[in-house]
Amino acid sequence: MFPFSLYVVTHPTHADDAQASGVCAAVACLLDRVAAAIDGGARLFQYRDKQATRRAMFETATALRHLTRAYGAVLIVNDQIDLAQAVQADGVHLGQDDLPVSVARKMLARGAIVGVSTHDVDAAIRAETDGADYVGFGPLFATATKQITRPPLGIAPLREVAARIAIPIYAIGGIRRDHLAEIIAAGATGVAAVSGVAGDVRENVAANVATWIRQLAESSTATRTHPDSLVKEGGLPEALGGVSKT
Amino acid sequence: MFPFSLYVVTHPTHADDAQASGVCAAVACLLDRVAAAIDGGARLFQYRDKQATRRAMFETATALRHLTRAYGAVLIVNDQIDLAQAVQADGVHLGQDDLPVSVARKMLARGAIVGVSTHDVDAAIRAETDGADYVGFGPLFATATKQITRPPLGIAPLREVAARIAIPIYAIGGIRRDHLAEIIAAGATGVAAVSGVAGDVRENVAANVATWIRQLAESSTATRTHPDSLVKEGGLPEALGGVSKT
Repeated sequence: MFPFSLYVVTHPTHADDAQASGVCAAVACLLDRVAAAIDGGARLFQYRDKQATRRAMFETATALRHLTRAYGAVLIVNDQIDLAQAVQADGVHLGQDDLPVSVARKMLARGAIVGVSTHDVDAAIRAETDGADYVGFGPLFATATKQITRPPLGIAPLREVAARIAIPIYAIGGIRRDHLAEIIAAGATGVAAVSGVAGDVRENVAANVATWIRQLAESSTATRTHPDSLVKEGGLPEALGGVSKT
Repeated sequence: MFPFSLYVVTHPTHADDAQASGVCAAVACLLDRVAAAIDGGARLFQYRDKQATRRAMFETATALRHLTRAYGAVLIVNDQIDLAQAVQADGVHLGQDDLPVSVARKMLARGAIVGVSTHDVDAAIRAETDGADYVGFGPLFATATKQITRPPLGIAPLREVAARIAIPIYAIGGIRRDHLAEIIAAGATGVAAVSGVAGDVRENVAANVATWIRQLAESSTATRTHPDSLVKEGGLPEALGGVSKT
């Protein structure tokens, strides 16, 4: 279900930065960045924007849906289930303060993906129990992307989560290229990247995405067992975790 | 479809004011105010909160749904189509910056009510063309309820809208009791009241609501033709308008 190691999360600044430089209009810039990430090999995207009006988001998400569909890429919409439905996105990503997973599941089409942001081991376990298809887990490291900053979790709780849940785990928060091997070794399915990848200048996005995906693949091969294949077999064996439970 | 002259719109301060005084918890207070408005005869409510998290709104809206259903009252949810669906509200109220009416219509169950906030005659006509079931029209007078303040429209454009669209019109914005006769005479179906009615101290809500509803009914009788009955016959005759088009 999730043969993706890189989860690209859009950010309004992807558009704003370029717009401020006068290069192009906001939506066109965002699409351009996403197209570049697709060029680089990314196939899993989350449309997130905490500032735009619903109408503006509808228009942007509609354009993103056309683009991602054309390349067989998955499009997840952040927070707004109605927006996900309206643009026929592949799923929705919910925060801890959003509608419950069970409610989202009932509203969405069969097979829709429901992901949940989690910030501690208990929340990740609960998300799986509630029926989430994957979790975001973080912030692993310090990041300036979100307004609300939480203390970074580090690698240890990721390792514990990987040992305790079977659904895919995307590590998020301040992830740099030199973290990737460690994150995959800890049992994450992959990483969600906002500014780390797609926030770069447009010319570098495709190359950076390609580099990250290659490095994630190499890390997975280096890891004793590939997390994706484990998930398909129904859960990570506890043996892999090497976890000290808190 | 809309035999209602008073449309009570909730506001976070309904809860906050009372909570600040230490009387009860926010949601309980809001429910208490709505129950008092029901006591006073109101049967059309909009749940609006621009500040709470989606999860908190889900919980509040669920409680409001139980309460309104028990009394045969209509519950409309502001902005969030997914929230309306999640709590089985009777419909959704959309702003000009929200998802389009046509999109909302497709997502909601058959028979769901879709209303639209409009701030000029053209927008009201467009809302009807787009398939809205009713419009809010305003702000008629100066109000401190919304953060974004628009210049008050006054009565003249309301009269024009009433002459040009057939769907119910709820006048909104700074409406006081001494405005009601004029508003109904101008052709409005009724008034939407936020602070004007339900913002009062709890003890007065039921009495105030009853007074407004009585006065709205008297105004309708005094008006040559009752707007509600006209709507049922398929539109306001132009003769009623007496409009000077701008």
